[in-house]
Amino acid sequence: MHADTGLLSPGWADTAPDDLLGDRAWLEAMIAFEVALARVQAEAGVVPPGTAEAIAEAGDPERFDWAALVRGVRETGNPVVGFVGQLTDLVRRVDPTAAEHVHLGGTSQDVLDTAAMLVVRNAFERVRDDLRSTAGALAGHVRAHRGSVMAGRTLTQHAVPITFGLKAAGWLSGVLDALDRVERVLDGGLPVSLGGAAGTLAAYAEFGPARVLDLVGPLAAELGLAAPDVPWHSTRTPVADVAAALAVVGGALGRIAVDVAVLTRTEVGEVAEGSAPGRGASSAMPQKRNPVRSTAIAAAARQVPGLVAVLHQCAVVEDERSAGGWHAEWQPLREALRLVCGAARNAAALTSELVVFPERMRRNAELTGGAIVSERLGAVLAPVLGKAEAKAVLAEATAATADRPERLPEVLAAALRERGHERGADHWRALCDPAGYTGAAEALADRVLRRYGT
Amino acid sequence: MHADTGLLSPGWADTAPDDLLGDRAWLEAMIAFEVALARVQAEAGVVPPGTAEAIAEAGDPERFDWAALVRGVRETGNPVVGFVGQLTDLVRRVDPTAAEHVHLGGTSQDVLDTAAMLVVRNAFERVRDDLRSTAGALAGHVRAHRGSVMAGRTLTQHAVPITFGLKAAGWLSGVLDALDRVERVLDGGLPVSLGGAAGTLAAYAEFGPARVLDLVGPLAAELGLAAPDVPWHSTRTPVADVAAALAVVGGALGRIAVDVAVLTRTEVGEVAEGSAPGRGASSAMPQKRNPVRSTAIAAAARQVPGLVAVLHQCAVVEDERSAGGWHAEWQPLREALRLVCGAARNAAALTSELVVFPERMRRNAELTGGAIVSERLGAVLAPVLGKAEAKAVLAEATAATADRPERLPEVLAAALRERGHERGADHWRALCDPAGYTGAAEALADRVLRRYGT
Amino acid sequence: MHADTGLLSPGWADTAPDDLLGDRAWLEAMIAFEVALARVQAEAGVVPPGTAEAIAEAGDPERFDWAALVRGVRETGNPVVGFVGQLTDLVRRVDPTAAEHVHLGGTSQDVLDTAAMLVVRNAFERVRDDLRSTAGALAGHVRAHRGSVMAGRTLTQHAVPITFGLKAAGWLSGVLDALDRVERVLDGGLPVSLGGAAGTLAAYAEFGPARVLDLVGPLAAELGLAAPDVPWHSTRTPVADVAAALAVVGGALGRIAVDVAVLTRTEVGEVAEGSAPGRGASSAMPQKRNPVRSTAIAAAARQVPGLVAVLHQCAVVEDERSAGGWHAEWQPLREALRLVCGAARNAAALTSELVVFPERMRRNAELTGGAIVSERLGAVLAPVLGKAEAKAVLAEATAATADRPERLPEVLAAALRERGHERGADHWRALCDPAGYTGAAEALADRVLRRYGT
Amino acid sequence: MHADTGLLSPGWADTAPDDLLGDRAWLEAMIAFEVALARVQAEAGVVPPGTAEAIAEAGDPERFDWAALVRGVRETGNPVVGFVGQLTDLVRRVDPTAAEHVHLGGTSQDVLDTAAMLVVRNAFERVRDDLRSTAGALAGHVRAHRGSVMAGRTLTQHAVPITFGLKAAGWLSGVLDALDRVERVLDGGLPVSLGGAAGTLAAYAEFGPARVLDLVGPLAAELGLAAPDVPWHSTRTPVADVAAALAVVGGALGRIAVDVAVLTRTEVGEVAEGSAPGRGASSAMPQKRNPVRSTAIAAAARQVPGLVAVLHQCAVVEDERSAGGWHAEWQPLREALRLVCGAARNAAALTSELVVFPERMRRNAELTGGAIVSERLGAVLAPVLGKAEAKAVLAEATAATADRPERLPEVLAAALRERGHERGADHWRALCDPAGYTGAAEALADRVLRRYGT
Repeated sequence: MHADTGLLSPGWADTAPDDLLGDRAWLEAMIAFEVALARVQAEAGVVPPGTAEAIAEAGDPERFDWAALVRGVRETGNPVVGFVGQLTDLVRRVDPTAAEHVHLGGTSQDVLDTAAMLVVRNAFERVRDDLRSTAGALAGHVRAHRGSVMAGRTLTQHAVPITFGLKAAGWLSGVLDALDRVERVLDGGLPVSLGGAAGTLAAYAEFGPARVLDLVGPLAAELGLAAPDVPWHSTRTPVADVAAALAVVGGALGRIAVDVAVLTRTEVGEVAEGSAPGRGASSAMPQKRNPVRSTAIAAAARQVPGLVAVLHQCAVVEDERSAGGWHAEWQPLREALRLVCGAARNAAALTSELVVFPERMRRNAELTGGAIVSERLGAVLAPVLGKAEAKAVLAEATAATADRPERLPEVLAAALRERGHERGADHWRALCDPAGYTGAAEALADRVLRRYGT
Repeated sequence: MHADTGLLSPGWADTAPDDLLGDRAWLEAMIAFEVALARVQAEAGVVPPGTAEAIAEAGDPERFDWAALVRGVRETGNPVVGFVGQLTDLVRRVDPTAAEHVHLGGTSQDVLDTAAMLVVRNAFERVRDDLRSTAGALAGHVRAHRGSVMAGRTLTQHAVPITFGLKAAGWLSGVLDALDRVERVLDGGLPVSLGGAAGTLAAYAEFGPARVLDLVGPLAAELGLAAPDVPWHSTRTPVADVAAALAVVGGALGRIAVDVAVLTRTEVGEVAEGSAPGRGASSAMPQKRNPVRSTAIAAAARQVPGLVAVLHQCAVVEDERSAGGWHAEWQPLREALRLVCGAARNAAALTSELVVFPERMRRNAELTGGAIVSERLGAVLAPVLGKAEAKAVLAEATAATADRPERLPEVLAAALRERGHERGADHWRALCDPAGYTGAAEALADRVLRRYGT
Repeated sequence: MHADTGLLSPGWADTAPDDLLGDRAWLEAMIAFEVALARVQAEAGVVPPGTAEAIAEAGDPERFDWAALVRGVRETGNPVVGFVGQLTDLVRRVDPTAAEHVHLGGTSQDVLDTAAMLVVRNAFERVRDDLRSTAGALAGHVRAHRGSVMAGRTLTQHAVPITFGLKAAGWLSGVLDALDRVERVLDGGLPVSLGGAAGTLAAYAEFGPARVLDLVGPLAAELGLAAPDVPWHSTRTPVADVAAALAVVGGALGRIAVDVAVLTRTEVGEVAEGSAPGRGASSAMPQKRNPVRSTAIAAAARQVPGLVAVLHQCAVVEDERSAGGWHAEWQPLREALRLVCGAARNAAALTSELVVFPERMRRNAELTGGAIVSERLGAVLAPVLGKAEAKAVLAEATAATADRPERLPEVLAAALRERGHERGADHWRALCDPAGYTGAAEALADRVLRRYGT
Repeated sequence: MHADTGLLSPGWADTAPDDLLGDRAWLEAMIAFEVALARVQAEAGVVPPGTAEAIAEAGDPERFDWAALVRGVRETGNPVVGFVGQLTDLVRRVDPTAAEHVHLGGTSQDVLDTAAMLVVRNAFERVRDDLRSTAGALAGHVRAHRGSVMAGRTLTQHAVPITFGLKAAGWLSGVLDALDRVERVLDGGLPVSLGGAAGTLAAYAEFGPARVLDLVGPLAAELGLAAPDVPWHSTRTPVADVAAALAVVGGALGRIAVDVAVLTRTEVGEVAEGSAPGRGASSAMPQKRNPVRSTAIAAAARQVPGLVAVLHQCAVVEDERSAGGWHAEWQPLREALRLVCGAARNAAALTSELVVFPERMRRNAELTGGAIVSERLGAVLAPVLGKAEAKAVLAEATAATADRPERLPEVLAAALRERGHERGADHWRALCDPAGYTGAAEALADRVLRRYGT
């Protein structure tokens, strides 16, 4: 096993499998590049037929001397020099002629950048699938809770009522945005790299007639990647776009996580994560059921922006290949992919298993009596008392009933009576019902459902 | 008051004007929101005709008590509460009835988020224009230097020859990517914000009949922004997209800057920044002509990723409005915009004024004798000696002539002769000409020109 | 000109005055450098007596052409070249001979780096004072609430009881750490910069006899800064140390802020921020009393690490002065100082005005019946039932009484009876009292008080 | 093998061994905590004698079910719950009574935070040793090149002469700073963690008499860590201090790396990295000898600040244990340690093997004729012509001789003659010698050597 196992990474442990993102997966992607390169070169008549097949046969990750590869990373600054050496040796045992044509005209950066794009594609496809599952689960919550009234909270305080349907619709809206950004990258944003030593394709030009540029398209097609106009060795837009998509996914899921964390607080108790034996267990407190899915997602979301910043900084590179700028990209890219893969997988689980307690929501929404609809009361009072006076009356009445919120209607009735406006407490009590002041919550939730496609 | 004039910001000093990004510009955008809101409310029959006009008339930035505004930021956590209070007072002097309808149904976040989108739009339009100028200037260099041979450099060492046309085409390619990302944001990525206190539009629902959602479209149209499906108070995709675009622009320009910095080194001297009296002057060294444009751009590019990371982190927010997450966005957004505006303006100047020295490029490319084309020599020798032996011969020959590189052809001829292959030094000398090994450099440069549209 | 008044910065608005951190403050610090340099040069006999006095007299910030200064920043990459030019002109009007000796032997970086250290010192002294006030206020809470039992919360769930005294002691502990880091910087961590054009002090060596190094100590003494062994133009440890201290302060205060935000949640209500007319007001909801102090601190704490990362990145600089790395430092340094100044001032206010509700704490701690002391129950049961069985019994009993937590003692009594252990419900009820399981909370709180010094 | 192998990490590949920082090293540190805890509990009479020995015997990393551990990370949010379960089972096979006392009173965070401190200690000790080696090698360069004149460069341009001794002294100065910061952390900055479920030590209080606090000191002593006043579960100063030290080391070494990268440029050629067969090899270009050590260090230095920012952000945590903030710390901490370990090891190699070419330095310093000493010429001319006129003459003369710098003395002589000052070209030629204008370079270098202790 050639990867961090996840012991220190609740953000992706047991969710972001080795076969997508581990060192071995990168090696496989590097082999795939060499096979595909030989294939299109054979088709162009540059290397003998059978070269690609020989490389494919010999290029078994199990046969590599891993320790030597790692020493090579230190001695040459990247894994490709050692990889090509070992691969050539392996091919030689199978087909000595083919061995002379391994990596023909290739450069390290072409191999590694293309491998990175392949790894990103595989990871993004899994992220896309998990985002779709998440979206489906959220759409279910939106439908199930269109009318479940709860407190809308701003700056930690009850503000005005919302519905859980609308809250889930907001989550869904962010997930759909994230899905869109991921799909945009998958759809043409992952180019093959083929530039040769300094981006001129000179080595390829040497062995071929004149149509050197014609290699790029077939190579891209062979690998299922996009064909760039020009080599992008020092033009890191593809990496920046991947980084941006990772940031959007991290944000969209992290936001759900911290929202769920609030709603699961012992004092709030409006939702709970799905339970399973041992899940969320504490080493010391038998009663504990920790919100581990949202914790894992939140932990991932805290790390992604810092890694994304490193990737963005690595776009600022000198020369045809930077001494350090390029080399600093690979591990942050891999780690950010792991975290986002983990977050997407955990989000799919979190949202599909989430338990919602609408009665508790309702009860919490009523905690402040009618103070939660003071905006509505203000709108009702303003035409009667003027805007400023209405606001003052309400501020005073809500402060006065902070400890006994159920008395707000009576206190309001009295305050209005003093000012010559006689309406009974029942009138105010009806206005104070949170369920009567959810605005366009349901219509808005429906809009997101329509965008989702149901 | 000299709070932030740019004294400490070579990255944007004298380029990112106050009227786009200063506090006053934000205040104007907030006023624009209130005017537009009143206008669409008047059209919907919710507020009296003339309200918007009264707000527009009264809402003169000069009339605000700035110190009170700033105190309000501390006391209420955002500038809107105090702003609405002062605006209402100003409107009252003009039209007391209109004053009762200022900010009707509005919430702080709607005002500030919309203002942010307006500020971003104005700034991005300027960035777009400057990127276009930069692209135009770069296209000129590509055309002028299609055949100007220079050393391609990787990890600081001469690698294989390239042309300056290709290098400039690489710069142009990144700028066109950046331009595309900026235009994508401008084209539908900047939504108006209208959600009310907790995103339900409840306050608007109160005063109107049933068509509360119908306000959003007209408001967006009025302000030239996009109309979102649902309120995005806690769904920060628009900010994340802006941040991503800023990162791409910063990277695309920063990369040009560090490349120019290398090429202007005293020992390299292949390009120079445009000169003007006093520009690049040192306080102590009369001979100095510092590359100040690229320094300014590089300084900006170093700062943008960190600010972008803050913005991405601010997507992870709890509740219907976060206690701190939202508030941490504004200043990093403004500062990143300033830096990117500055970088774009400086890049337009840098590229249009850049002086190129093709003879020096050529001379530098010949510094290593033929070592710079060792890849080519290897390709020629491989069929003769085998790949491994060819590589060994070349490594030995280049090492042996490191001090007297002009002797490489003779040394190679001798080495080959020893191995029974007789070709004169002239044969090798011809192969060693850097100009003979630029591969597809010209064709690739042409591709970027085609993308640019010439 | 309203460039950066704080409108967008709740993190420091109305707390981090211009006179410490505004552009003008930097200009004053630059003038202070030139005056002090002339003074020590006069004492060394290098410039005529009276030079320093002439500079001090002429160097009035009001007399500078600010727009020209800012243009100079763009044209020369830093504010010093233009500043020296204007200062020299101003001095010439007062004393033409002195004008010939302004900035003698000086280089831009010496002026600006020294100015930065002076600005940091002034800002850190204010931060130190505000941290001391904060510590004092927190010590008061520790003393007042040594025995105020509340729920300890981990991963959002009630864990075991703590006291508010211990929580406040934890806050205090972090503040004392922060204070220590700030004082460590103030005590010798802020060196004067004097190196000349490339750190050799050559220009000073020219005009003096041999004792050029003897200027550094007097200059440092004159300005109240430390005297470095060697010029630190490209050795950015002082900036890194300042950055580290800023990060520690931001973390120590940000952590209090997010803790307070949790405790002020409508459903929790265990503390409230101090109130004042208009403070925490909403533009639409009259009942709202937003926790604006903790919001402001949290907003600052979210931004500091990103800015600190930029500063750390700026330590990686090439040459005797970097083309961009140095220039990227100034504004992030200033902004991080503003945010930390603001956070410290707001923390002093927050903690001194914080209202604590011990009854509500107690009531919340009892919300889960005895589940909050399940760890204790487990310790009691383990010797009787074995560790594993004890844990299982407790997990079952707490799950079974989740809706009626007050029944836990009876359920436990029944479960034990089934297993042949007869103890009445009263026995279990007594064990379930949160106040009986606060461990060493008081002793630990006392330790922090001792460290604080009372 | 349970760790990233380094395939994607030139920054630390083959330098930061698994046994210090891999998952297994963390597991060993967790076992060490449990053994030490049992030992001090046995001494306190709380657990039977022999418990610690049984845990030590049973706690063999090879016996753990690694896949189950990783599943546990996902299900419980941290590795400790599963670890304690497995450890208890392993101990039970050896000593069933001891098994009942494993992790007695412990909480997950105590185990993992203490393990982190142990891992940091081991890693920092290695960093310290490598920094000492680096310092030693640099001191050698300082001594060897006290008088080796070279161009001082600012903003990429020749500024004034320096010596390589001074440059190396600047590098050494930063390394000594870094060493000091690392030693400061090692000397008391790494506390054991012992707080129990929510920091009250309640579980320990239960089983013991009254002296629960007395466990902390012995536990710390047993593990070679510091004893904190109070639990630091939510007071992350120790992590912030470690992060700060990592940033300082990264900066001090990264700066050397980018400086070396400049000096090895083909056009500059003033230093070369030590060579070895295959080191710095390219996959395609036989002549290439890439500066791989400095590339590796630069790559590490680009990543550290982003990871440090994540760590600083993780100080802002709510409650007695955060839902995500704590969990986001572990992997960035490990990765930053890896990078800094790698950078220190590579820096020791880089500096000890660095090849210096003083003749080339001298030749480069003369490239601009005397322009490199224009500051000196200005100082000489100022008393004669006045400061402004002197500067103008020099700017004109250096610009006029940019292509034929050797003519500067004659041009100056002519310019002075025109102005009535007759001094021959020889006079100016002598002044133009870079070796005559190195100021206090040697004295400053000596100061750093004295600080180093030779």
